[in-house]
Amino acid sequence: MAVTSSTHKVNFGDPRKFVTTFKSKCKETLFPDDPFAQFKNEKPSLRARKALQYFIPIFEWISTYDFKMFRYDVLAGITITSLAIPQGISYAKLADLPPIIGLYSSFVPPLIYAIFGSSKHLAVGTVAACSLLISETIERKVTAKDDPTLYLHLVFTATFFTGILQTALGFLRLGIIVDFLSHSTITGFMGGTAIIICLQQLKGLLGMKTFTHKTDVISVLHAVFKYRKEWKWECAVVGIIFLAFLQFTRFLRQRNPKLFWVSAIAPIITVIVGCLFAYLAKAESFGIQIVGNLKRGLNPSSLHLLNFDPEYLPFTLKAGIITGFVALATAMSNIVMAIFMMLVLLFLAPVFSYTPLVALSAIIMSAMLGLIDYDEAIHLFKVDKLDFCICMVCFFGVTFISMDVGLMLSVGLALLRALLYVARPATCKLGKIPDSELYRDTEQYPGSILISGILVLQLGSPIYFANCNYLRERILRWIRDEEKLSDSGSNTIEHVLLDLSGVSSIDMTGISSLSEINRILEAKRIKISLINPRIDVMEKMILSKFTDIIGKERFFLSIEDAVEACRFSLQRDQKPDPLPDISAAS
Amino acid sequence: MAVTSSTHKVNFGDPRKFVTTFKSKCKETLFPDDPFAQFKNEKPSLRARKALQYFIPIFEWISTYDFKMFRYDVLAGITITSLAIPQGISYAKLADLPPIIGLYSSFVPPLIYAIFGSSKHLAVGTVAACSLLISETIERKVTAKDDPTLYLHLVFTATFFTGILQTALGFLRLGIIVDFLSHSTITGFMGGTAIIICLQQLKGLLGMKTFTHKTDVISVLHAVFKYRKEWKWECAVVGIIFLAFLQFTRFLRQRNPKLFWVSAIAPIITVIVGCLFAYLAKAESFGIQIVGNLKRGLNPSSLHLLNFDPEYLPFTLKAGIITGFVALATAMSNIVMAIFMMLVLLFLAPVFSYTPLVALSAIIMSAMLGLIDYDEAIHLFKVDKLDFCICMVCFFGVTFISMDVGLMLSVGLALLRALLYVARPATCKLGKIPDSELYRDTEQYPGSILISGILVLQLGSPIYFANCNYLRERILRWIRDEEKLSDSGSNTIEHVLLDLSGVSSIDMTGISSLSEINRILEAKRIKISLINPRIDVMEKMILSKFTDIIGKERFFLSIEDAVEACRFSLQRDQKPDPLPDISAAS
Repeated sequence: MAVTSSTHKVNFGDPRKFVTTFKSKCKETLFPDDPFAQFKNEKPSLRARKALQYFIPIFEWISTYDFKMFRYDVLAGITITSLAIPQGISYAKLADLPPIIGLYSSFVPPLIYAIFGSSKHLAVGTVAACSLLISETIERKVTAKDDPTLYLHLVFTATFFTGILQTALGFLRLGIIVDFLSHSTITGFMGGTAIIICLQQLKGLLGMKTFTHKTDVISVLHAVFKYRKEWKWECAVVGIIFLAFLQFTRFLRQRNPKLFWVSAIAPIITVIVGCLFAYLAKAESFGIQIVGNLKRGLNPSSLHLLNFDPEYLPFTLKAGIITGFVALATAMSNIVMAIFMMLVLLFLAPVFSYTPLVALSAIIMSAMLGLIDYDEAIHLFKVDKLDFCICMVCFFGVTFISMDVGLMLSVGLALLRALLYVARPATCKLGKIPDSELYRDTEQYPGSILISGILVLQLGSPIYFANCNYLRERILRWIRDEEKLSDSGSNTIEHVLLDLSGVSSIDMTGISSLSEINRILEAKRIKISLINPRIDVMEKMILSKFTDIIGKERFFLSIEDAVEACRFSLQRDQKPDPLPDISAAS
Repeated sequence: MAVTSSTHKVNFGDPRKFVTTFKSKCKETLFPDDPFAQFKNEKPSLRARKALQYFIPIFEWISTYDFKMFRYDVLAGITITSLAIPQGISYAKLADLPPIIGLYSSFVPPLIYAIFGSSKHLAVGTVAACSLLISETIERKVTAKDDPTLYLHLVFTATFFTGILQTALGFLRLGIIVDFLSHSTITGFMGGTAIIICLQQLKGLLGMKTFTHKTDVISVLHAVFKYRKEWKWECAVVGIIFLAFLQFTRFLRQRNPKLFWVSAIAPIITVIVGCLFAYLAKAESFGIQIVGNLKRGLNPSSLHLLNFDPEYLPFTLKAGIITGFVALATAMSNIVMAIFMMLVLLFLAPVFSYTPLVALSAIIMSAMLGLIDYDEAIHLFKVDKLDFCICMVCFFGVTFISMDVGLMLSVGLALLRALLYVARPATCKLGKIPDSELYRDTEQYPGSILISGILVLQLGSPIYFANCNYLRERILRWIRDEEKLSDSGSNTIEHVLLDLSGVSSIDMTGISSLSEINRILEAKRIKISLINPRIDVMEKMILSKFTDIIGKERFFLSIEDAVEACRFSLQRDQKPDPLPDISAAS
């Protein structure tokens, strides 16, 4: 098998200009979805219309909206409203806010979202988490009990910052920051938040009046047992019945997805039954607390209530920023729901003032229990232990320390993992798959065949300052190991082939390191060959004159080409035998 | 061209056990150089001896040491001593320490290093940087002028912590942390430090008595001109003559590397000439300050001088830790030098008390000017603009703010780059190189050929939570772009081939994302095929049942195999023509 002159050429063409690559990298980093592609090559008038539709999607769909779609939306709106009323009241309770605020929050944001929004998700989990996050952060400074008005204003201010942050992130296309909240972190965060929110509901479920403002498991359980004289068994009985009912409807839906509407209207049924019960049975006299005081009508704008006092600013800012990140995936429903909610606010609000707190606690607990994703955690454990760790750190951090600390620990661990990935890229030894020109990992494909005198290594990506010392040590170790395996003498390594197909990026330290590896190997009389450097890598190698140092003849487009060239030089140097030894991989 | 049954099989074997992969990953992360390989398969007695030699290298080389080597070492020792005397005094001055301490530091550490050390470098730069770093950090709390004894003790304590940190890092094999100091950061740091150290020497060069404790360019220049009445022209003239002499010897060495000894002994000549000049010309009366007060003899142990007072602890700890990291690459010379230095301390120390400060300033400035690596900075600018940025951030951070801030900003930027790499892995479209079975980037190899109806994408590594949203958007964009290019109708994409050869790692979020991509493409009637997943990726795909969801028949070992299978299904579905269209890449 002689070397054919038909080996395929590596492209040593001029590198692209810096401006070109810089522009393309910025685009990949900030605009991966290429939102402006649709505006290209259009007339200015059409372009303006498309831009308007892009930023305010209602203009895109309103023109094709018809009566049939409206009928479906009315049905959907009623269902969602029946969910939103108890949710609104419950989450307001969670954030220590007057219940009416919760109802407003189900009315104004959906309207805004219907005009500007583009996604169609309805994420219950993060809403609850955000409610608790805001109250937890603000109450470190001012509690709702001590100064309800100031507290309310600070919460408004925090949500104002949340909005500002989210708008800014959206305009600056910095969604990339949110990419660093991994699936595992969110699973752990949801589970942990669900646990601490459930624990908070013990107050309502047991009819207690004194409680703690802390959220960690130990403080809450301590408070629950410290004030156990306040427990009301009547309250607990009612609460457990409601909870059982809600969990049962959830179970029904799991068994038969067609019955989803049962679990959808279960919360409003709980509220209505609770109201009737409280009204008819004068439940208050048994110590079952009710929401109370829900004025009918729409409230005025709360813009003048924003509080930028420097004393409270760090707390409102912190609450706003953390909430902004957590809530970034969150979105709401539609105009119809907003209209129904407005009707409720205008005419029905007083009715809900009889809602027993215990019913709300049961609704929240039931929703939260559904958020603990045991299956996902088990799945993570089976597939990826480190992902499981990240998930558990978040879960236990949230339940035992606090929501923000848990979140940060988990994100920190996930980042550390990403950095470790960069610091220790995987390399492997390649062997030839019989009857093919394919070279694959000898560990993964034990049948692959090694070629005597030639060591083929596949390098992991990227080759960066953080891993080039490692890479050098690792390559030298591969060579040592190989020479140890075949210490018969005849079989020493004379060629090392580095497959760079998978290396999508390299920096200056990486290139210096490759030069150093080349020097070390030259001293051992081993020749290095580089296979298929990708475009970014090749450009830097040309610019830094690395290609000239190594020699352009040592670059190959495929492993097969390189192996043939090396075999040819081995034959010429060593033996007249035209067929080199082939030994099976260890 | 019909599908042959000889396509090569993908390995769907059982994943390795968690313990196995965990062990191997720990080994790769902490022991990449495999230091224990030499102990394997040895007798216990031999193993103990090898371990002793590994930890205390002197046992390894002392047995082969002979008289000839000793003769060379005596020569080297004399040369290095002549360098170490002025350096020791100068760096002590830089750290605001009594000059005698600097001489001791050239005597004890090399002895310890000769016994325990393994490297043979002599890094002047980091020693100077460490001297300044320690004084800068400690003087934020206590200045050498106000309380020399306390200051001295705090410096001892800081160096003690430096030693503890370095020992701990060594034993815990956490050199990985130092991997994150990139070549560019170090180039910038050295340059910046050289500038601020030179600026500090203006005090000595101009014979000033009042000066600032700050190190940034603006403060120092401000101080230099504020106290310009203290300038001594006699001093400046002497200083400039010394500096010119030192720079000239450096220039000689550059021209003719054989004259290296001239530049090596130049500093001691400067000191000797300076001493003679000061002694004979009574230089002090002209306002040329001298070192003064150098007692002869060896000082007692300074262990009892360590100061762990909580008031100063944060400063000594900080100084110790930063210095520990910066100095980690640093190493020193050998026993002979230590012996010569001991002789100097025992008999010659008083002689050096006549050294004029201006001579020391000239020596430091000359050494520092050699550390500014203009060529490297220009090289970085040409090859990698981001590396150049990292270098410049460090340089300007050090010169205009402070050494630790500059270092942290630069490391932060380098880490951000590594994270961005993980967040935005490069993907590219592959085409077939004519007359081969190779598929390469169509941008890099414009002659490569696209196959109608089939889109081949090479994915970057890793597929992680931080990039899987990006990956989805990017793949969908490749498909949109492709369909736009060929809107003739007949040429729509029916198969997407994802080449995973370069993907060395995937996490759970990544696998869910691949499932999602599969769902989206199925809805568009596009079939997905996966090519050559590597061992770690394959194992997670099997464990998470992803292989079953996609179908094992959609996995291929090479692009060629996958393309043939897709072509076969295209032919069967669409047209009787046995040869599919082939169109050149755009």
